[in-house]
Amino acid sequence: MSKKTKSFRPKARRPKGLEDRFGALASAETALISAAADVYASHGFELLATPALEYADCLGKFLPDDDRPNEGVFAFTDDDDQWMALRYDLTAPLARFVAENYDPLPKPLRRFAVGPVWRNEKPGPGRFREFIQIDADTIGAPGMAADAEMIMLAADVMAAAGLAHGEYVIRVNNRKLLDAVLGNTGVPETDEGAVQKLRTLRAIDKLDRLGPEAVARLLGEGRKDSSGDFTKGAGLDAKGITAVLAYTRAGANDLDNTLSALEPLMGVSQKGAEGLGELRAIVALLQACGYGDGRTIIDPSIVRGLGYYTGPVFEADLLIETLNEKGQRVRFGSAGGGGRYDDLIARFRGQPVPATGFSFGVSRLAAALHGIGRLGTAPRGPVVVLALEADQMVHYFAMAEELRANGIRAEVYMGGSGMKAQMKYADKRHAPAVVIIGEDERAKGEVTVKNLVLGQQMSGNIKDNKEWREGRPAQVTGPRKTLLAMINEALT
Amino acid sequence: MSKKTKSFRPKARRPKGLEDRFGALASAETALISAAADVYASHGFELLATPALEYADCLGKFLPDDDRPNEGVFAFTDDDDQWMALRYDLTAPLARFVAENYDPLPKPLRRFAVGPVWRNEKPGPGRFREFIQIDADTIGAPGMAADAEMIMLAADVMAAAGLAHGEYVIRVNNRKLLDAVLGNTGVPETDEGAVQKLRTLRAIDKLDRLGPEAVARLLGEGRKDSSGDFTKGAGLDAKGITAVLAYTRAGANDLDNTLSALEPLMGVSQKGAEGLGELRAIVALLQACGYGDGRTIIDPSIVRGLGYYTGPVFEADLLIETLNEKGQRVRFGSAGGGGRYDDLIARFRGQPVPATGFSFGVSRLAAALHGIGRLGTAPRGPVVVLALEADQMVHYFAMAEELRANGIRAEVYMGGSGMKAQMKYADKRHAPAVVIIGEDERAKGEVTVKNLVLGQQMSGNIKDNKEWREGRPAQVTGPRKTLLAMINEALT
Repeated sequence: MSKKTKSFRPKARRPKGLEDRFGALASAETALISAAADVYASHGFELLATPALEYADCLGKFLPDDDRPNEGVFAFTDDDDQWMALRYDLTAPLARFVAENYDPLPKPLRRFAVGPVWRNEKPGPGRFREFIQIDADTIGAPGMAADAEMIMLAADVMAAAGLAHGEYVIRVNNRKLLDAVLGNTGVPETDEGAVQKLRTLRAIDKLDRLGPEAVARLLGEGRKDSSGDFTKGAGLDAKGITAVLAYTRAGANDLDNTLSALEPLMGVSQKGAEGLGELRAIVALLQACGYGDGRTIIDPSIVRGLGYYTGPVFEADLLIETLNEKGQRVRFGSAGGGGRYDDLIARFRGQPVPATGFSFGVSRLAAALHGIGRLGTAPRGPVVVLALEADQMVHYFAMAEELRANGIRAEVYMGGSGMKAQMKYADKRHAPAVVIIGEDERAKGEVTVKNLVLGQQMSGNIKDNKEWREGRPAQVTGPRKTLLAMINEALT
Repeated sequence: MSKKTKSFRPKARRPKGLEDRFGALASAETALISAAADVYASHGFELLATPALEYADCLGKFLPDDDRPNEGVFAFTDDDDQWMALRYDLTAPLARFVAENYDPLPKPLRRFAVGPVWRNEKPGPGRFREFIQIDADTIGAPGMAADAEMIMLAADVMAAAGLAHGEYVIRVNNRKLLDAVLGNTGVPETDEGAVQKLRTLRAIDKLDRLGPEAVARLLGEGRKDSSGDFTKGAGLDAKGITAVLAYTRAGANDLDNTLSALEPLMGVSQKGAEGLGELRAIVALLQACGYGDGRTIIDPSIVRGLGYYTGPVFEADLLIETLNEKGQRVRFGSAGGGGRYDDLIARFRGQPVPATGFSFGVSRLAAALHGIGRLGTAPRGPVVVLALEADQMVHYFAMAEELRANGIRAEVYMGGSGMKAQMKYADKRHAPAVVIIGEDERAKGEVTVKNLVLGQQMSGNIKDNKEWREGRPAQVTGPRKTLLAMINEALT
């Protein structure tokens, strides 16, 4: 082995668009997952874990912004030459699971799932090729109560993540309303009409980023961006463009007012009446359950890029500013979304299976919440027991164990360095205190506890140094049996 | 979309060797991960999450039973033609992370990690191509205290998983002892000797499965198995085979006795003296910390297949019988292992970095513990609020919310079916009780609680049926405001 090591030394590097998360950031992710899982489990959802790899044809072609199979996913052939791919979301594997195990499963099926998903796309700031999602879905529930529940659950998860009323909102819309608007402007229900509809969805999805003028062009003939690339438009006429833009602006900050504003835009469309009826049923439940207090709004500009939604769509929005990669304060925006997809499982079964769900982007949301100090804030390291004499390890272990038995995170220094390096290590670990038994202490049966938090305050505040030292010194020595009491004192 | 659905209907199927886990089994995995993570975090380990994908050259060639790159892993080229692969363990990505971020990291680095790993191997019973591991490693700790801690932590994790003293054991050994035995029998320290050593390791690894006679052949010229396949042997002479087998049998059930039995087998070997010295240091700490009570033993037959271990090796063994795929009671065996690997990070850095760690096979262990009722036992489903009148959903939601607010898992039936199907659903979900407000109850302001657990007992015990019905009926009706009290009564 050592010979090979000499002949080949690879460069340690991460592939682009993939990230490591260490310490507090990784723990923030775990905390968010745990909070969301508790919400879903308390509502009767059961955990489902499916493999990361699926047959590519089972995953289907439902990637956002992509109609071609295998594009946007990491795919390769198995040893029997079948194409496999890393899942790009948790919904496609759910559809496979439900279709494969349909008969014995309880219907409705209420499942939540959590895990990494992969997108083989060009990475960018905050845009990774692997990230964690947590999803909840109800399969086999045709009524709007299931959608209303998804919306309320999304609000509950945001609250469980530590967000206050007013710091988030769940936006609700219904795809059928846009279908109605497009139908009213003459977009046909043909393959060509479907392409126009998909381009319209994607144009509306860019309202936030590009503004109404650019989106108007994307709704019409198309748009050349600053790099000179031309994006073909949805081909709507002027009347259609106006109608679609008017529709996206019909949202008000009140559920009832938005419903009233939307009504005249639907004309005599049957689809429009259906969509409005579904929204009304959802709104009635949201209001009756107390979620009509601003936590949920109807926002017609929310369409969600995915092609497979058939009715209600939702988006969870983080309203507060967070720090981006460059440390700038930015509006965070969408933390997840979902909707009703009654046709997705039909791919396998040939007949529609009603389904609705919600997916949170855990990695992104956890990073944002951690960045503003909401999750895994101010991580306190372990108490570090210094290891100053090699033959005294047993006693160091016993002290650390005593602290842990009393609920205090603690470790023995495991490196091979001297006292100075050990103190530096304790600082780097954000240790609140170190435990020291040197030769002197050992001879007297004593132990020294150094309070690093206090020590830092003292060194940062020279003027009060003397005062601090006299009043409450950062370092105390006492009998070995008083260790726990001294540590508890230091930690308060 | 609907047109495409008609033209192409894929068969819903999982790729071979990959499994779905649903409900209680998936939750058992989560419970085990959470228990282990708590143990590691309390000892000062920090969570590290690295991506599933790494550059293949960074992962290296350290797969067990495989010296060739890319064999045994799922690999494919990125869009810049670099080979990427799904990680096959959590140690190789740790080595990459440490080498890439060496200077700013605290040393020692204490990290734990959890997540799926992938092996592109022939699947078999209990042998999957994707499974979850949880690892803890201490990087930069040269002393045996770090290894002793790993062993104690392994025992703590087994205990945290709900296992009692005597139901598990952590087996400890040191690679240097086998080096000494091989050196004493004339195996040279050359490339050829290294091959002999690797074959010896793999032969010993098969002792459990094949027995000493077959292993003796694998230590010598080689062995033809029942299928006629020939495995080339390590090429030891008769004296060497005898020495190796005697070594593997030197274990006793007591730490000190095994040390005494091993001593004469080491001869004058310097490596042997080193290995014994390391074992003695570990044993001293284990005994002083109370882990010498049978939870840890020295077992010279434990070698761990991986080529990269340089000193102490460990294995966590589940001693109780569990159910295999066919429902047969079998000895479970290894639930994880680890050891010291001082050369692994040297691949990147060119100089040794001392490191030791332990890895648990979460998926396998959780499945076994769940199978014998230790984790996620007797999963109780949610209380199901029946949805009998479409316009009363608000009241059903309010009741479920009232129960949840009091810590009771509860849901409203979300399907579109009638009462009979709803009751069947509640049974399938293992609901302890259902809440019923039909027209009658509604008119009177009442609610009915049906105790499904009691109901099942009654139907299974016809003789006592009358008695039960009189004493404590499975169904009670009372004022709506007594819902919580009635449910609490049903759940006790």
